Amino acid sequence: MFAKRIDSVEYAIRDLVEVAKKLEKDGMDITYLNIGDPGKYDFETPQKIQEGFLEGGKHNYYSDSQGDLECREKIALKEKYMNDVNISPDDLIITSGVSESINFLSGCLVEESSEALLGGPSYPSYIAFTKFYEGTPVFYRMDEKNGWNPDIEDIEKNITPNTKYLQIINPNNPTGAVYTEKTLKGMINLAGQYDLFLVSDEIYDGMVFDGEFKSTASLTDDVPVIGFNGFSKTYLIPGARLGYVYFANADEKSLDLKENMLKLARIRLCASTPTQKAVIPAIGHEEEFLGDTMKKIKSRADLTYKRLNEIDGISCAKPKGAFYAFPKVELDDKWENDKEFVVDLLKTKGILTVNGSGFGDYGEDHFRIVYLAQENVLSEAFDKIEDFMKEKY
Amino acid sequence: MFAKRIDSVEYAIRDLVEVAKKLEKDGMDITYLNIGDPGKYDFETPQKIQEGFLEGGKHNYYSDSQGDLECREKIALKEKYMNDVNISPDDLIITSGVSESINFLSGCLVEESSEALLGGPSYPSYIAFTKFYEGTPVFYRMDEKNGWNPDIEDIEKNITPNTKYLQIINPNNPTGAVYTEKTLKGMINLAGQYDLFLVSDEIYDGMVFDGEFKSTASLTDDVPVIGFNGFSKTYLIPGARLGYVYFANADEKSLDLKENMLKLARIRLCASTPTQKAVIPAIGHEEEFLGDTMKKIKSRADLTYKRLNEIDGISCAKPKGAFYAFPKVELDDKWENDKEFVVDLLKTKGILTVNGSGFGDYGEDHFRIVYLAQENVLSEAFDKIEDFMKEKY
Repeated sequence: MFAKRIDSVEYAIRDLVEVAKKLEKDGMDITYLNIGDPGKYDFETPQKIQEGFLEGGKHNYYSDSQGDLECREKIALKEKYMNDVNISPDDLIITSGVSESINFLSGCLVEESSEALLGGPSYPSYIAFTKFYEGTPVFYRMDEKNGWNPDIEDIEKNITPNTKYLQIINPNNPTGAVYTEKTLKGMINLAGQYDLFLVSDEIYDGMVFDGEFKSTASLTDDVPVIGFNGFSKTYLIPGARLGYVYFANADEKSLDLKENMLKLARIRLCASTPTQKAVIPAIGHEEEFLGDTMKKIKSRADLTYKRLNEIDGISCAKPKGAFYAFPKVELDDKWENDKEFVVDLLKTKGILTVNGSGFGDYGEDHFRIVYLAQENVLSEAFDKIEDFMKEKY
Repeated sequence: MFAKRIDSVEYAIRDLVEVAKKLEKDGMDITYLNIGDPGKYDFETPQKIQEGFLEGGKHNYYSDSQGDLECREKIALKEKYMNDVNISPDDLIITSGVSESINFLSGCLVEESSEALLGGPSYPSYIAFTKFYEGTPVFYRMDEKNGWNPDIEDIEKNITPNTKYLQIINPNNPTGAVYTEKTLKGMINLAGQYDLFLVSDEIYDGMVFDGEFKSTASLTDDVPVIGFNGFSKTYLIPGARLGYVYFANADEKSLDLKENMLKLARIRLCASTPTQKAVIPAIGHEEEFLGDTMKKIKSRADLTYKRLNEIDGISCAKPKGAFYAFPKVELDDKWENDKEFVVDLLKTKGILTVNGSGFGDYGEDHFRIVYLAQENVLSEAFDKIEDFMKEKY
């Protein structure tokens, strides 16, 4: 009765929430370390955006399907001063969050027999939309021992005539990695050599506290880069759902992709007009909210890294950006797999994390922690994880 | 290089805009009678919603993928007092406009060999998403002589084992029809008899000025109805992109559909949280903005109906709701088809309408006019159409 594609769709991050909600209903206290949403913790919508909604709320007509021109102009400026990316307002499409960018991309490129070449592990939406459009996610190895940088040799091994695009997520979800310039240049070279669409998701661009973030498109003058970005993370408004996709160094093939993505943009009419208008006043004033935000995040990252590595059976690479840690757990014969571990931790101690296998290959034996909660909440959670591991070992 | 599905996607309403923009660039004055957007004319965002954005702008966390509970509670109340539909907050999913509801529905149901049984003519998104998911739109005849009510016999003739759902759009886009109770009951009976998903798009529910609107779900206690609705039209905020889908009289099959649509809702995380919060204060206060709005719309509908029928070669059924007229034009040997007519009218007189064939079968030889513009603008446009027809005949 239903289309075949729908059976394959799952989204690990939200699917486990149902289990947690049930435990909560039964009276258990749950600590949610699962969703990358600053607004759920002690981070507020920037003042300039709150004020922006006052004006934005008056603009409720359909905007251009490609995006409000004033908003696109501001975004093009932002990409220049923040990421050294050269694009014009016409090189970008505004979407309802990066999720819609991933959907448009996959809808244009992926069909049966298609492969999407994704980081292993990967943010799950890429996996879900690839399967939804009946393609196959293929994972290249990310090297935990090298700060979770992608393994360039392994990427090359996995390129086939069916590869539709090569994905970068930098700063990375779920690992917290910030890729080196060498890694990025290696990926750019492969994309150029094999004429692959290179998709660079940089939604955490302003959220780096260790090492230096380089935008992929800033590192090449000739290889086309399809950039994904938006306002959810750096601008602290994930629930407003506003993202964009840009086409840097566009060749004919990228322009065709843009035209096809615009077709999909037209059927859904437009991204939210009031929200597009609301973010405009904040662009160019990132320092007003990013400074304090990043101070908090860095100190929580440090705490997380220290505490996790003190626990027997758990080890964790140093997070450098975004707000995730992706620790490894020694499952031994205590748990069948990482999902069982995560469910056990949830049911025993009320700590909700996400199983690493939910992020695809190379995610197994790991779990993802969002460390946006206040330090006392985090400390208590780490105490519980420590006790949990002691009890089990 | 691109997925097969993308070639078939088009959206007539927006595709012609490109031609108009080019003429405008070359110095021509264009009168836009093509897009159903009150915000482009002299209709303002209701005060309560403008104020709602002030509060909504503070809520930028991810909301429940199904929709903010407070907003769903209010919507369930609204469906009761406005449309006599009995649903609970759990029976509905909040989406980014009805467009996203159509996308979710089609993504769950339509694949190769599937047929969507649509009104001929139909709002084009249903056609576009059916083709995008590789299915076939099949059109049942709507009877112009019977106020564009669907022809029940023709619907039954077109039902096959591949029919995935039967569509109702009432009040109707593009014809301005409001269906009779008899028509709706006939469609409900067919859906019950053939066990078809019955999809009732009622986005213009508050915009009826002639005859009585009945919500499909209010007319049956046992046949499941999948209702599409939202805030774009009745609440005058099309660009905010907020809609919903509800499952009334849900049976097991509808509950499975709901679960599958929720899977898609989870991958895109949530509908805009600030917008969900922003509309809450307006629900229950529709009289504050609908009264004046409908007075304006009715008088423009009357003008449109009168003027169009005075023009030789054009005839028009009486619009009863929404803000569209769908006149018939005698093409004779003057124009090859309605698209050529519409392009000729645009290039000769600068009046942009939409070709009827863009709405599927039974749309040929017609064109759609949005009559939201002020009466002096409309009058001038009708003068020009009258001149145009005189010159051509």
